[in-house]
Amino acid sequence: MSFMISRLAAVRYSARTVVDNDFHSLHHNLRTVSLSSDQFASNKEKRKMAGKLTEEQRKTDLEPLLKSGWTVVNNRDAIYKEFLFKNFNEAFSFMTRVALLAEKMDHHPEWFNVYNKVQVTLSSHDVNGLSTRDVKLATFMEQAAGLFK
Amino acid sequence: MSFMISRLAAVRYSARTVVDNDFHSLHHNLRTVSLSSDQFASNKEKRKMAGKLTEEQRKTDLEPLLKSGWTVVNNRDAIYKEFLFKNFNEAFSFMTRVALLAEKMDHHPEWFNVYNKVQVTLSSHDVNGLSTRDVKLATFMEQAAGLFK
Amino acid sequence: MSFMISRLAAVRYSARTVVDNDFHSLHHNLRTVSLSSDQFASNKEKRKMAGKLTEEQRKTDLEPLLKSGWTVVNNRDAIYKEFLFKNFNEAFSFMTRVALLAEKMDHHPEWFNVYNKVQVTLSSHDVNGLSTRDVKLATFMEQAAGLFK
Amino acid sequence: MSFMISRLAAVRYSARTVVDNDFHSLHHNLRTVSLSSDQFASNKEKRKMAGKLTEEQRKTDLEPLLKSGWTVVNNRDAIYKEFLFKNFNEAFSFMTRVALLAEKMDHHPEWFNVYNKVQVTLSSHDVNGLSTRDVKLATFMEQAAGLFK
Repeated sequence: MSFMISRLAAVRYSARTVVDNDFHSLHHNLRTVSLSSDQFASNKEKRKMAGKLTEEQRKTDLEPLLKSGWTVVNNRDAIYKEFLFKNFNEAFSFMTRVALLAEKMDHHPEWFNVYNKVQVTLSSHDVNGLSTRDVKLATFMEQAAGLFK
Repeated sequence: MSFMISRLAAVRYSARTVVDNDFHSLHHNLRTVSLSSDQFASNKEKRKMAGKLTEEQRKTDLEPLLKSGWTVVNNRDAIYKEFLFKNFNEAFSFMTRVALLAEKMDHHPEWFNVYNKVQVTLSSHDVNGLSTRDVKLATFMEQAAGLFK
Repeated sequence: MSFMISRLAAVRYSARTVVDNDFHSLHHNLRTVSLSSDQFASNKEKRKMAGKLTEEQRKTDLEPLLKSGWTVVNNRDAIYKEFLFKNFNEAFSFMTRVALLAEKMDHHPEWFNVYNKVQVTLSSHDVNGLSTRDVKLATFMEQAAGLFK
Repeated sequence: MSFMISRLAAVRYSARTVVDNDFHSLHHNLRTVSLSSDQFASNKEKRKMAGKLTEEQRKTDLEPLLKSGWTVVNNRDAIYKEFLFKNFNEAFSFMTRVALLAEKMDHHPEWFNVYNKVQVTLSSHDVNGLSTRDVKLATFMEQAAGLFK
């Protein structure tokens, strides 16, 4: 019993640091998190434990993004999308929303902007590939950019 | 059972400090995290337990701010300061720096702006008074506004 | 004929500085702009010439805003509205959009924010009352805030 | 002919400075501006007239930037610089300051950001090369980034 509860807690814990209450990936983490080693690890260590997206996660989490116009980058485990807005005002306020979340997650995009165009590349350097954080940030960008359509 | 619950909260507790990337307190907590009842509360509960600034903290942490122009608000355990910049460009970029930290801390200022003026009131609603979060945010504002002098 | 063209152009020119390509108020300015005195006036001078909203403009331009929840401030020729968003992320990105336009127009709001709330007061100090710039800024805020509904 | 060009330049100058609220040169221009056809040209037309930096301007205006770390881009009349900050908070607030000015000037940078790094390329598409607007924006970036040193 105590084992069960501990395990639950460890999972909730890692879920919080890794994806900030993303209950979907909380579910995924059930298998990967261990209480003892995990409990007081740093963010970085935690993230490495969370690791790259599993094959299963790539199907369930990445597919919807690829259908929304994200593409997998050549020779690199990263995803890319170009967002086009009406003007700089829309583009930069989109960037501000993303910046606020990125800073909160401590997970920052690689992005290029000129006028109404924002080109984004997402990958998790600490796991040298795509993680649930990239899925979360990309999904938020879809939602934020969607408002301007 | 209380033992099991303790484990739950100890984990959640360390999560919060890690999430804030405060490696200092992370390190600190490695030694001090105990299984007292305090540990298991939600973020909100935790903040309430963390509570208002103690008399000692008001001397050590608040004094420097009062010397920097912050004043204690009448009939309210809050601090206030008016920042003046050269123009709106400086004022709003200051607000953006503060916004990025406030969102990361999940602790937001009450602020008024017009052109080059930013009037800030800080208090922690969950403890109905000043907490260490207000000291942290005010200290950051001092540093950020100081650049423009 | 060349006089006509000059006149049109002068209007377009002043319209550009006063309301930055707002063709609606360009129309309004047709009556108020004079070539000789206006042509090389400063922004400030131009704005005073543009002056407060006329009774006609209050009907045509202000009414739609009052129907959208803006109210006239007591004892002051200004308009006020409180915008509520889901969270700080939405509220501050709204403020960033408005800030980019305000800075471009050199016409800045008086606004208060805490978390998801943004309270805005608009008035044109140089004409000591409401001008077409306030209508333009308020209309833009309606559109920008509308995206989040 | 050179007389004509001078007149054109004087007018163009006043249009720009008026928009920029430069009351000093506004006053200066009150005596020098004429009613040549240029006066009512659109911003775009004005900019084309302004044209690329002259050899003289490249010495007087560009040199200081090259000494500050800006480099001329290969095979393109553009300048480039990489700015490094302590963290994303500093980098994005720098971008916000630049964004506010860029939008006001209606002259936007090509820039790439990841975490604390901001890589900027400046050129004026309408003149297919460097203009005084690039010098102004780059000079502002130097000043804004300089605060963080």
